[in-house]
Parts: sequence; structure tokens; C-alpha cells
Amino acid sequence: MRDVQSEKDHRNIPINMVGIKGLKYPIIVMDRTNKRQHTIGTFNLFVDLPKDFRGTHMSRFVEVLDRHNMKVTPKNMESILDDMREALKATVAHVTVDFPYFIRKNAPISGIGSYSSYNCGFISTKNKEFDFILKVEVPVLTVCPCSKEISDRGAHNQRAMVNVQVRMNSLVWIEEIIEMVEDAASAPIFTLLKREDEKFITEVSYDNPRFVEDVSREVVLRFMNDPRISWYRVEVSSQESIHNHEAYACIEKGKSL
Amino acid sequence: MRDVQSEKDHRNIPINMVGIKGLKYPIIVMDRTNKRQHTIGTFNLFVDLPKDFRGTHMSRFVEVLDRHNMKVTPKNMESILDDMREALKATVAHVTVDFPYFIRKNAPISGIGSYSSYNCGFISTKNKEFDFILKVEVPVLTVCPCSKEISDRGAHNQRAMVNVQVRMNSLVWIEEIIEMVEDAASAPIFTLLKREDEKFITEVSYDNPRFVEDVSREVVLRFMNDPRISWYRVEVSSQESIHNHEAYACIEKGKSL
Amino acid sequence: MRDVQSEKDHRNIPINMVGIKGLKYPIIVMDRTNKRQHTIGTFNLFVDLPKDFRGTHMSRFVEVLDRHNMKVTPKNMESILDDMREALKATVAHVTVDFPYFIRKNAPISGIGSYSSYNCGFISTKNKEFDFILKVEVPVLTVCPCSKEISDRGAHNQRAMVNVQVRMNSLVWIEEIIEMVEDAASAPIFTLLKREDEKFITEVSYDNPRFVEDVSREVVLRFMNDPRISWYRVEVSSQESIHNHEAYACIEKGKSL
Amino acid sequence: MRDVQSEKDHRNIPINMVGIKGLKYPIIVMDRTNKRQHTIGTFNLFVDLPKDFRGTHMSRFVEVLDRHNMKVTPKNMESILDDMREALKATVAHVTVDFPYFIRKNAPISGIGSYSSYNCGFISTKNKEFDFILKVEVPVLTVCPCSKEISDRGAHNQRAMVNVQVRMNSLVWIEEIIEMVEDAASAPIFTLLKREDEKFITEVSYDNPRFVEDVSREVVLRFMNDPRISWYRVEVSSQESIHNHEAYACIEKGKSL
Repeated sequence: MRDVQSEKDHRNIPINMVGIKGLKYPIIVMDRTNKRQHTIGTFNLFVDLPKDFRGTHMSRFVEVLDRHNMKVTPKNMESILDDMREALKATVAHVTVDFPYFIRKNAPISGIGSYSSYNCGFISTKNKEFDFILKVEVPVLTVCPCSKEISDRGAHNQRAMVNVQVRMNSLVWIEEIIEMVEDAASAPIFTLLKREDEKFITEVSYDNPRFVEDVSREVVLRFMNDPRISWYRVEVSSQESIHNHEAYACIEKGKSL
Repeated sequence: MRDVQSEKDHRNIPINMVGIKGLKYPIIVMDRTNKRQHTIGTFNLFVDLPKDFRGTHMSRFVEVLDRHNMKVTPKNMESILDDMREALKATVAHVTVDFPYFIRKNAPISGIGSYSSYNCGFISTKNKEFDFILKVEVPVLTVCPCSKEISDRGAHNQRAMVNVQVRMNSLVWIEEIIEMVEDAASAPIFTLLKREDEKFITEVSYDNPRFVEDVSREVVLRFMNDPRISWYRVEVSSQESIHNHEAYACIEKGKSL
Repeated sequence: MRDVQSEKDHRNIPINMVGIKGLKYPIIVMDRTNKRQHTIGTFNLFVDLPKDFRGTHMSRFVEVLDRHNMKVTPKNMESILDDMREALKATVAHVTVDFPYFIRKNAPISGIGSYSSYNCGFISTKNKEFDFILKVEVPVLTVCPCSKEISDRGAHNQRAMVNVQVRMNSLVWIEEIIEMVEDAASAPIFTLLKREDEKFITEVSYDNPRFVEDVSREVVLRFMNDPRISWYRVEVSSQESIHNHEAYACIEKGKSL
Repeated sequence: MRDVQSEKDHRNIPINMVGIKGLKYPIIVMDRTNKRQHTIGTFNLFVDLPKDFRGTHMSRFVEVLDRHNMKVTPKNMESILDDMREALKATVAHVTVDFPYFIRKNAPISGIGSYSSYNCGFISTKNKEFDFILKVEVPVLTVCPCSKEISDRGAHNQRAMVNVQVRMNSLVWIEEIIEMVEDAASAPIFTLLKREDEKFITEVSYDNPRFVEDVSREVVLRFMNDPRISWYRVEVSSQESIHNHEAYACIEKGKSL
């Protein structure tokens, strides 16, 4: 059968990224407590395509991924990228994967356990060097400092999503990132809280009011002081309870205006 | 050209609903203040198909809709349904449309104006009789009564979405539904609030703590006492600030367990 | 601490459903090939609330779910529902759960294996009796019979999503539902296809053109003839390649116009 | 009342972007045929925040936007950005807005008219200079060249989304971008097609098979040859009818590997 993709292209235009997008695949990721966790990845797998070829070979992306037995670790990502470059005769390879990650947490006073879900992901590229970014989304509670200050009673508060991306010099567990982010908010949130826990979270959060600006800076302070973290991007989106839109703040290391 | 759709089907299975889904079309709806409002509808247009025919004629759904000059009112919906039944030789026709609707609201103390957006919709059917349901989604603020009661200071609160559906004996404006729902919550929410407004909303909501159960019942009380409303379904989903899931309550008129 | 939820409510309005929504939790479901499959559930857990009580106890829903060790089978669902009714002193309990489910499939000619992902779910209720519905979403290929008939060459085709719900007299595997649905379409689809497989799927689908009406009827024919299936609802949504909207057909057993 | 936001911050960390996100507002955009089109914008409005201030003033973003009477043109965007910088004492301002845009198109043979919807947007920044990017998403039809070549009959095809971003030296209408993109695909798609139109589109597309790689290159060829376009990014995502994931290609001007 003719290999249409391998035919010469005369338009003289290289393609930056080509491949498959939105592929769901079962994966196994590292878990600090249980060593391994089964979860579900949503993958984008891309390579570059030189100007001389008409198309890439889409089926090979799946073959490479499938060959790695579902293991998705930083080390494994580099191996997937190398295999993609070889299988597709490419110079650069890109793999991103998003996955839900579960942690068993105990309520702060009652100690009762339950699972909390975090949207995590990896962004990786291999050209000459291997680049790897860890993404973690942490839901937290933010109490508005302005509302607390100007009101005779109460203070508006809400769930906020903190999206962090980090490059690392050495391993930082997802669990550690979550702890740092929760520590930077008005209070952490939980799947299961009994009444005594709810009282505690309500009071702690009221005592620690935080704007989205505060949360982003507090996370950055913690990341700056961790020598394992070489780069970070921190975004905070607060689902304002008094509005139907979000408040947002973003700090990226090394980015000027 | 052969009309494959009109060919006889021998499988002896009537189809309950067939047509097109997810069609975006510019529309004009009634506006209490400005008479008319331009907005964007997302339509589902379905009819039944008797067991004897292989297929419906999809293009006619668009032709019927387009012929009505974008006007979407209760009266107009019935006319669209009648035209669909005729154009497609059907017994029953169904049209649902969802659209964002904007209202200019003034902040409670400063009086400054801004637009608020509400997801609205119509669900309509014509068999022998014409059935019409108005849908309105109203974002509100809910302060947790339990959290307030058990805590020495503060109370967790959050944005909650109140989804109501009503059948009417006579016209009820979208604006009236929104006012009834906002009145049933801890406080209304706004796109633009200056500091004095934020203080007001914070204190008012703290003085009116409401569970999702309370909000649903308070809305129902208002609907029960409005003779124009003959049927209702009220759903409240609160984006709990202390959890990463929603609290939910639903009351439907005439529904037992 | 005061139990605000248990206080008497004087509004005299029972609530049909109250509980938690959108809770993500790790689960284990039955797998025809491997006995068990780890996946991720998104849960809604509701009970009724009599007119005399102000609120339900939201934390107990999570406690009940957590106590079942993540197992989600039809039998286990009934046990969760019973526990919810007891823990929350309710008459009726409702649990819905949606989850991705993976099946290893071999390409039709090359035989190469890969995982395919299917969105599945359970809808269950316990009042006096236990009611259980299995949901499966199957992506398939549909070639338009009209386009093929009237065109001198080619025929437009596209991915279509077939959403089925079934009530069962005895166990039907998710895998069996998928096979019946794929058999009813122009062709099944795969995550990984080599060139010889792509040729096969292209030709097979061209030889079996199917409207959404055809697919829905063909699925129903297979379900009618399976004594294990006591009720079904079949929806087909075709992501029309020549339009930016969907074609849709729906057949529900026992539903008249 | 105390202005908490204006207080001095001692953490010494400037914030790259702070403001509001996901704000829906009614807007009026330019329309080549009808001069003006009412539509609905979803806005992100951000500024930078120097290290010395604790917070920005969120309400002023809405005030600035509201003051511009809903007009959203390139010229107007610069004015919004300037007003944001002044109102918030910022150095840089960012505004992005996404909106649906409708065009009346006539079917290729029958000539019957209907509206097609396109997701469009603007990305604008003002620091010392004003930067403006136009985004347009164009759904098209792609027939797979490989499938056509290797199969004895038929060829798999599908809806593909072409997302383009352009910077301009002088005005390029959204309508012109759409025409260039449709011309680069196997065939354009329409909301309403009668049988003779469907035959035409089926045959034209079969005669013009295009990979995602082909479509991206063909769009780039057209953009390279238009002196009004100074920069482009072209992404093509094809909703593969034989898979449950997308095929993807991306070319960005000036980007190396």
C-alpha cells in the first residue's frame, strides 16, 4: 500500500507540532504513600515534521505509548519522548498528560479520613535536553480581607483553585506541593468534615483572610525557599461568592511585565 | 435524486425523537425593560418518526427555524413547533433553546450599574396541546447556617446556582423569577460592587444564613403563592467553599418520593 | 454543638432530593476480562427529606460511600443505598456514578492491541424496590446513506456517540453492550489502526451506510432480542462532518409520543 | 472605610497579572456586511501589580469595561487598555475576549441561506506598545488522503476545527479569514444543505483529500501571501471519525523547534 504520509511535500513549510490529542489511556503514577496509583491520563503527543514530508504516522504515537506499560513517571516520560523521536524520525517530541490524583486526608479535628481529588499533569519536551514540568491544581478556601475589614460581621469567602506549575532540580512530591499551597491559603478544604472540623475551618479561615494576590505571593514565598524548585508559575482563580466571575492572580518566575 | 430518507422502513420501530442538536443561532427574546434583546440560542429541534419511514429530513429543521426571523417568544415557539410538524409530517415536535440573558442591575448602596448574565431557556413541545417551560439559572450567595451557629466568628459561604423551571398560566418575566430567587437566598450577587456595597452584601448574607434546603423551600414558597405559576421544579447547587463538591437540593411540584 | 439541620422546619415543604453532587472518588468496577478495574467515579448521592426537618447531614453521604471500600457493583450499589437510607433516616435514596472504563481491543486486520475508553455509569434508586440502570456511551463511525446514494464518489461520514441505558433481568457486561452497539453502526472505531486496518474500516463502513435513525433502530433490534434486557433507552448523536451541529435520534422502550 | 488593597505589601513580590476572569458582557463587534453585530463576550481583564501594593481594585475593571458602551473593536480595545492602566495605576494591561460571531452563508448549489456560528476572539496587551491578535475558529471538512488512497471505495472524513491567530498590519475581516481557511480544507461546511448541496460537498471534498498537516500548510500559504498579515499561528484539530481522539497540527510563524 502506498505510504502517502512519507511522500515529498513541496510547500516548503515545516510543521512545529503534529500528532494526536485528547487520547485517554489508563496510567500508573507514583504515590508517596502507596508507591503506585492507578489513574486515567489524557494525552497530547506531538513531534515536529520537517518541510520535506507530507505527514506524520499517527498510529505510531499510540504504539509508543502503549509499549510503556502505562507507567508515567518523569524518567518514563523521557523514555516515551525518545521513543517518539525515533519512531517518527523527529527532532523534538512533546508529551503532556493530565490526570486526577487522589490523596487520603484526615479531617483536622475529628481525624476522619476520606479521599480528595486533585487535577495534576506533566508537560514534557525533548529536543537536545529534556524538560519536565509538574502541574498541580489545589482547591482551597479564601476569605476576603477587604470584606472582613469593612463589615461589622462575617466576611465573604469561596473556593479558589490554585494552579501551579514547577520545574524541579530534584523530586518534589505532589503531596508536598499540595501542602505548601494549602498552607498559603485561608484554609485547606476537605471532602469530609464533621461539625467540629467545620467549626475549626471556619474560624481558621476567618483568622487568615487572603486575597488571590496574597495566596499567589504566599505560594511563591514557599517555592522560592525550596531549593528543589527551579522555576514556578502560580495562578489563583477565586470563584467569588459575591460575583458571577473569578478573581485572578498570576506570578511566573523570571517573567517581567 | 433518490430520497433515501422517505423509503419504507421494515424494522417496525417508531423513533421517539429525531432531529438536530446543538445548533447555535442568533435570536431575539423579549426584555422587560428594553422590549427586545439580541442574544444567541443553542437549539435542539426534534420530531417523532413513524415506524414506516427510514429517516427524517434534517435540513427542514433549519429552514423552519430560519423562517421565523430569529424571534423566540412563547407564541413564536408554538408557531415553530407547528411548522416543524407540517414540514416533517410529524405528530409531535420538541424545541429546546438555551440562551444567555443580560439584565442591568444597580449595586445596592452605591447604585452603580452593570450587566449581569443569566443562563435561560425554553423547553417546548406540541402534540395535541402546546407545553411551554421557562428555565432560569440564578447565581446567588449562600451563608451556611450550621457554620455560623457553631463557629465563634465567621461562617463559610459560597456562590450557589439556583436552576428553576416553571410552567405558567400567564406571563412571568425572567426578571421576576430572578427577583424571587434572589430574595430566597442569603443575598443576591452583582457584577460590580463598590466597597460600601460589599459591606452591605457581606452583612445581609451573614444575617440570613441559608442551607440549599432553605433556598429551595423559600423559592417554592414564593412560587406557590404566585397564581401565574402552575408548576415548578427548583434545584439549588451550592459550590461549597469548604469542599470540592456541591451541596444539592431539588423540589418538584407534584412529585412524590 | 447545636444540630441546626435537625431542627424542626415549619415551611411544610418536603424536599424530593437533597445531598451531594459532583464528588470524585476512586472506585473499582467489575471487568469481564480482568475481574476488576480501577477507575474514577463522579458521584451524586441524594435522599429525600421530610417536611419536618430543616436539613440533611451532608457529611454522612461521604462516610457511607467511603465505608464501601470503593467497590461499585450492582449489588454494592444497593448496599450503599440501604446504608444511606439508614444513616440519613430517609425513605428514598438515589446514587448515580459516571466513570471511564477501558477495554483492550485488537485492530481488525493487524490484530495490534490498544486501550479504548468508554464513558459508563450507573443510575440507582432504592425506595421499596431497588432500581438499577447501566449507562454506556459508545463512539462509532456512521457513513451517511443519502450522501453515498446521491454522490458520484465518496460519502460523508463522522464519529457518532451512541448513549444507551438498560435495565437488566440478569447481568449484561459493558463489553457486550459495546459489541451490540458497534455491530449496529457503519463500523466500530479503534484507538490504534495500521494502514491495512484503516482500509478495512473505510471499506466496511462505506458498505454499511447508516443514518442516526438506522443506528438507533439496529441497536433496539439487538436489545429487543436479548431476554436479559428488560428496558432500554438509545440515543445517537452524530457529529455531522458537513455541519457544525449534531444529528440525533432517540428510542425509549415503552414510551409513546 | 479602610482600603486594604492599597496597603503596603512587604513580601517584595510583584504580580505579573491580576484582575477578573470569565466575565460575560454584551458587546457589539464590527460586521463586514451589516456594519455591527450584537454578541456576547467572555472577558479576562488583567493588569500588573507592583511589589509594593497588597491588592488591585477589582471593581474598577468592570467600571472601565462598562464605560465603553459595549463596543469592541481593535481601536476600542486599545482605549480600554489605556483606561485600565490609568484606573489601576498599572504599567501593563491585558484584555482577552471570546465571542460567537454569525455569518449568513448561502449553500453552494441551491443558494439557500442560513447562519453559521464561529468562535472568535481578541487578545490584546498594552505596555509601551499596543499588541492585538485576532482569533477565529473555523469548522471545516477533511477527507483523509491515506484512507482514500488505500481503500477500494470511500474515504474516512470528519469535522475539523481550524484555530487561527493573526497579527495584522491592516484590517483583515473575520469573513476573509474564514474564506481563506475554508479554501484550505477538503470542503467548507454549512448549517443548511439541500440534497444537491450535499452531493456537491461530498464530491468536492472527496476530490480534495487533506491531512491536518495539509490544511495547516495550505492556510499558512495563504497567510504568507497576504501582506496585511504580519504573524500567524495555525492549529488544526481533526475529530477523527475512525478514532476517539483528535489528529493535530500546529504552525507558528517565527517559531523554530
